[in-house]
Amino acid sequence: MSYCVAIKVNDGLVFASDSRTNAGVDYVSVYSKMHAFCTPGERMFVLLTAGNLATSQAVVNLIRRDLEDVAARESLSTVNYLFDAAHYVGALNARVQTQHAEMFEKSGGGKPEATFILGGQIMGGDPDIFLIYPEGNYITASEDKPYLQIGENKYGKPILDRIISPNTSLEDASRCALVSLDSTMRANVSVGPPLELSIYDRDSFELGRRISLKLASPFYKTLQKRWNEGLKRAFNRLPRFDWEQ
Amino acid sequence: MSYCVAIKVNDGLVFASDSRTNAGVDYVSVYSKMHAFCTPGERMFVLLTAGNLATSQAVVNLIRRDLEDVAARESLSTVNYLFDAAHYVGALNARVQTQHAEMFEKSGGGKPEATFILGGQIMGGDPDIFLIYPEGNYITASEDKPYLQIGENKYGKPILDRIISPNTSLEDASRCALVSLDSTMRANVSVGPPLELSIYDRDSFELGRRISLKLASPFYKTLQKRWNEGLKRAFNRLPRFDWEQ
Repeated sequence: MSYCVAIKVNDGLVFASDSRTNAGVDYVSVYSKMHAFCTPGERMFVLLTAGNLATSQAVVNLIRRDLEDVAARESLSTVNYLFDAAHYVGALNARVQTQHAEMFEKSGGGKPEATFILGGQIMGGDPDIFLIYPEGNYITASEDKPYLQIGENKYGKPILDRIISPNTSLEDASRCALVSLDSTMRANVSVGPPLELSIYDRDSFELGRRISLKLASPFYKTLQKRWNEGLKRAFNRLPRFDWEQ
Repeated sequence: MSYCVAIKVNDGLVFASDSRTNAGVDYVSVYSKMHAFCTPGERMFVLLTAGNLATSQAVVNLIRRDLEDVAARESLSTVNYLFDAAHYVGALNARVQTQHAEMFEKSGGGKPEATFILGGQIMGGDPDIFLIYPEGNYITASEDKPYLQIGENKYGKPILDRIISPNTSLEDASRCALVSLDSTMRANVSVGPPLELSIYDRDSFELGRRISLKLASPFYKTLQKRWNEGLKRAFNRLPRFDWEQ
């Protein structure tokens, strides 16, 4: 399992992901699920991945190969709109899965499906985020729901719904993404550290800040402690039942 | 969908449930999912239901019929242990599903599966809670995980994990159950009001307090407001990133 979230606010974009992958419960590894592709001053993309690791690695490799091939008919450096980029990644995703579909059917176990979030900005357009399904189709966020999630998305959703709006600052959106990841990690052991965070400033057309947080990192420990204390304080202020008064 | 939770603390048991049922997204109704069976001074049971409404109603009807039938071979008034009660309800659940299995297979749509939480206390034993699966088998809670959930269980789990321990008071466990239900209702429209809450005092062998909360009830509105404010306050106290200082 994985958990990744991307948030779109007025000031830019925030991407966050866990790093745990597992083949069954008895083979657990650490892989980054956050991949950045940037032509400074012109275009910037971040890709978050969930699902079959072989499929998501193959898609990332094909994206890189197309970027290096100046004669490529289509790549992240040729598309003119973000939704074209989402369409391109969706087509790669479908192509990779189709390559292995017959053998997956024969073996009868597992699925080659992968899901992606692609976000970024191309000069001349606004920043945006897209969720790309295993079938290759895609949706974007909205004013009313300015975030997208892939993987284990339920445990970490309530805090996003309460905090995130288009006016939220990039730093607050980042803290919210980390709390959302923390709640998910506590509930599902197949979601695990390090946590990766990437912050894109609108119209900067550069990679922006990127941090990786291990469980032992002082910032992450302080965040966990303050959140836990704050929740308990909030809980203790809930109203008493009439028979308690 | 439904969401029900039962909590076992040292002082007794707490049961909470939503009341929304739906057959597809275009037929939504209100049904209580909380059923109490009590022989005052001797034994008390609360049953929470999720899944197929016809199955859960049939199981409740069979429980009631067996209780009225003084010659019944087995009923909630004849079992000597709580796990016998769980086994009995599990067997009723399997029997009801089997009655309709052939027609469900022929129609090819939907499933007659239902899931239950049964909790209570029988004189001579401790209070306990059991989760009864559609297959009829069952598990109980533990010191480390003193609660059980059925239905839409993920959105409301993080707060239970943070607050509930065996030492939690019945009132705090009740508030936590309501917050857990509230978070779930915000995320999944197929979970809805009124919220029902039942509190059983250990060794009382009576039904105990039971309240039903509509969205407009002053207590529920205050709880929602304070929780939201408290979460925002907790969020605002999270550590700043080093570049913010």
